[in-house]
Amino acid sequence: MVIDLNSDMGESYGAYTIGADDEILRWVTSANVACGWHGGDPSVMRRTVERAKALGVAVGAHPSYPDLLGFGRRVMQITRQEARDYMLYQIGALRAFAAALGLTLQHVKPHGAIYNVAVKDRELSLGIAEGIADAGGNLILVGLPGSELLRAGQEVGVRVAREAFGDRAYNEDGTLVSRKLPGSLITDPGAVAERVLGFTRGLVTASSGKEIRIQADTICLHGDTPGAGAIARRVRERLEAAGIKPRPMGEFIA
Amino acid sequence: MVIDLNSDMGESYGAYTIGADDEILRWVTSANVACGWHGGDPSVMRRTVERAKALGVAVGAHPSYPDLLGFGRRVMQITRQEARDYMLYQIGALRAFAAALGLTLQHVKPHGAIYNVAVKDRELSLGIAEGIADAGGNLILVGLPGSELLRAGQEVGVRVAREAFGDRAYNEDGTLVSRKLPGSLITDPGAVAERVLGFTRGLVTASSGKEIRIQADTICLHGDTPGAGAIARRVRERLEAAGIKPRPMGEFIA
Amino acid sequence: MVIDLNSDMGESYGAYTIGADDEILRWVTSANVACGWHGGDPSVMRRTVERAKALGVAVGAHPSYPDLLGFGRRVMQITRQEARDYMLYQIGALRAFAAALGLTLQHVKPHGAIYNVAVKDRELSLGIAEGIADAGGNLILVGLPGSELLRAGQEVGVRVAREAFGDRAYNEDGTLVSRKLPGSLITDPGAVAERVLGFTRGLVTASSGKEIRIQADTICLHGDTPGAGAIARRVRERLEAAGIKPRPMGEFIA
Amino acid sequence: MVIDLNSDMGESYGAYTIGADDEILRWVTSANVACGWHGGDPSVMRRTVERAKALGVAVGAHPSYPDLLGFGRRVMQITRQEARDYMLYQIGALRAFAAALGLTLQHVKPHGAIYNVAVKDRELSLGIAEGIADAGGNLILVGLPGSELLRAGQEVGVRVAREAFGDRAYNEDGTLVSRKLPGSLITDPGAVAERVLGFTRGLVTASSGKEIRIQADTICLHGDTPGAGAIARRVRERLEAAGIKPRPMGEFIA
Repeated sequence: MVIDLNSDMGESYGAYTIGADDEILRWVTSANVACGWHGGDPSVMRRTVERAKALGVAVGAHPSYPDLLGFGRRVMQITRQEARDYMLYQIGALRAFAAALGLTLQHVKPHGAIYNVAVKDRELSLGIAEGIADAGGNLILVGLPGSELLRAGQEVGVRVAREAFGDRAYNEDGTLVSRKLPGSLITDPGAVAERVLGFTRGLVTASSGKEIRIQADTICLHGDTPGAGAIARRVRERLEAAGIKPRPMGEFIA
Repeated sequence: MVIDLNSDMGESYGAYTIGADDEILRWVTSANVACGWHGGDPSVMRRTVERAKALGVAVGAHPSYPDLLGFGRRVMQITRQEARDYMLYQIGALRAFAAALGLTLQHVKPHGAIYNVAVKDRELSLGIAEGIADAGGNLILVGLPGSELLRAGQEVGVRVAREAFGDRAYNEDGTLVSRKLPGSLITDPGAVAERVLGFTRGLVTASSGKEIRIQADTICLHGDTPGAGAIARRVRERLEAAGIKPRPMGEFIA
Repeated sequence: MVIDLNSDMGESYGAYTIGADDEILRWVTSANVACGWHGGDPSVMRRTVERAKALGVAVGAHPSYPDLLGFGRRVMQITRQEARDYMLYQIGALRAFAAALGLTLQHVKPHGAIYNVAVKDRELSLGIAEGIADAGGNLILVGLPGSELLRAGQEVGVRVAREAFGDRAYNEDGTLVSRKLPGSLITDPGAVAERVLGFTRGLVTASSGKEIRIQADTICLHGDTPGAGAIARRVRERLEAAGIKPRPMGEFIA
Repeated sequence: MVIDLNSDMGESYGAYTIGADDEILRWVTSANVACGWHGGDPSVMRRTVERAKALGVAVGAHPSYPDLLGFGRRVMQITRQEARDYMLYQIGALRAFAAALGLTLQHVKPHGAIYNVAVKDRELSLGIAEGIADAGGNLILVGLPGSELLRAGQEVGVRVAREAFGDRAYNEDGTLVSRKLPGSLITDPGAVAERVLGFTRGLVTASSGKEIRIQADTICLHGDTPGAGAIARRVRERLEAAGIKPRPMGEFIA
């Protein structure tokens, strides 16, 4: 019964501010820090790592397709080699800020569209995993349970962490209900908190009402939805009330 | 009587090819590798580091202002903190490629306009030097002798290397003759080779004809001029004929 | 006694939102629409022009240095020819959206750092003015009274409009008090409204207390400060209470 | 028996040079000018339009996905609205340069991956066609015969031109043989010239050896292959020897 809470951070860019980083950072144990390609700029990266350090939150990279205009949320057709090189570039950039502050980079969670495409795309997933392997330092690759991404990670020999979503409805086969369907997003803090608690026992209630098994090492808490801070707080408090203290994934992923 | 030969490398980008990397790389001992901000993309960076490794050439970062459109050759007004963060980002990105290939990053040579502005701008120079200090690893900062940049490096506590130019005319005060003036560029391979040899003894003939003292640790060989390969070869051969074997600066800079 | 009220608009970009466009747009008569180089993307440009049209606000281009990361607020060294070409590119892009909605582009107001540098830089100003002349359509160039920019506009033969700032303190010589000095920014809506009223009579009280003459055709209302909407409303209401109905500059600039 | 010869032009960017523009421009009748998103910068755009004007070559826009790093050759998932807005932006930017030189924009040929995706993607094609319709001026949309792109153009009410490739092998169904297959590219100048001549009669020999019908209004001559200038010249000379003088598509497309 051990779980990590992660959230995307540091996606502001230049004059543009996005997200509720300061609020969310108080409740999570791992921060996925943008690396400048979909959001984040070098100064935002430094400040985000500083804040994470101050709150004892572990730091990971949140690399993306090169698409600032689309915030990394649009599918792009890149080669396996490009994926590998793009990952290595972004991980290296973020690691420099972490290292400058005395922190070790813990994990890599691909952002947005590249994360989603990697669920089923073996070549892309291998490129991502190889870039992480290239980076060294025993980094953990975060992805969906059962995805090609985690399979590629295991194949390439990097540690992997299975991610679940407390605020997303699941189909009976363990996939996420499409965001386009009603009820795909769960916004009630109490309901989200109960679902996260369920994940710590490997269980979640699918949208059909049936209870299904989902093994998760880390739960994603979104920071870009209204009420995100309140939800994050409720999740953390519910877990602790149940005697579960969230811990950074690096402490328990083998 | 020890000298390093450096050249800018890896400035191609996507479909665009620039420079005579393969030709020059055979004759230099240190490669300044572009980091994606004025040229270079992650795949170019990987290939450039691979080639440098294959030829035993030491690798350094060649960070720039964020200005791909201007190839980093246009002055931009950035703050000391931005300079620090921009350096750290780019160094980190390149270091990841070097480390993936088992190489240690040797040096940092700012590119183009930021190098030139830093000759006289103390705040910018401090930002650059701080970014290099942040990056750790005992990196060497390359700059003009007598510049604010090298002064900042010493102040911040990073190693510094003094750079001279074999193909540029000098004023009597040790500054470079403006490129806008006739005779500012020396294109005869033999003449360049003799001047480089002179630098190893701390001497160069100014445009006035007077011999002046210039202490240099590394000589820049440009790769973007016609005949660059032939010049580089002549320089190398002239030095070796005089019993001077160029060595990567990391081997002799204290 | 005729005056235009202008404000910067459409500076959001992709997933990033900035400014209080909808609020401000109700009170101004001219909108300076970002063209994608410091903010604004094609879809934001379309929506901004649509909203301006719906509210009867005249549309102009707000071109910038190519610096999204710095939001166009950092000085860049560009040539006269580059300035000319950069202006023409951005004006053309925005004009396409205006024309698609049946609107004629009214004016061009350079954004941020390029506006400021052009106050004193004759070469840059000539490039800007030439780009506007190239664009045709009798566009009005907006700049500071007495600036090189307006001088260049007149020299090149484009219409010019003199801009004043209701929320900025003035020195006795008609220049703006540096933002770094206390009291440089006026935030009280009533005070701003009175100053704008004064500009319609060609008068403003300098920070020294002395009343000076400033001829203005258009007043800039900032949209990125807290309370910007309330200030814009108060200015508009104060003018109308005094019998002055703001009108788009295109209706009265010769 | 009327035909247009088109080629991609103006894809250089900043310090980077690509293509054999000057050579090719002598032989074609329509130039597809890059608009800054996959190549081309404002100064390159101006120079390219100037050269085309000097040689009497008609000018069209060559808009792209926003992917300079990938030279517009990588598929990106964009919405119909984004396609519409991206087209309008780029067309407007280029039109400004054409108009400044007294030229009317003749056509629009989407570049690279967006051209290819639009062959089969109806939503994307409608977005492209709508952007062209928005731009007004009776622009001609260039695409593959039988493509969704041309269908969308007709549906939206813009003129369309059917494009064929003299240097590409065709399948019996009129589609292009994949570049990955041997023999897909025809490099012999004489062979290319004969095929182009065939297109003027609506005929081409498929890779199977069977003669098939392909109706074409304009033939694409690639500028980025070795020997491109020689091929272009041979094509032009072969056509003229057969009494066919290539003309800009705007002169004969209804």
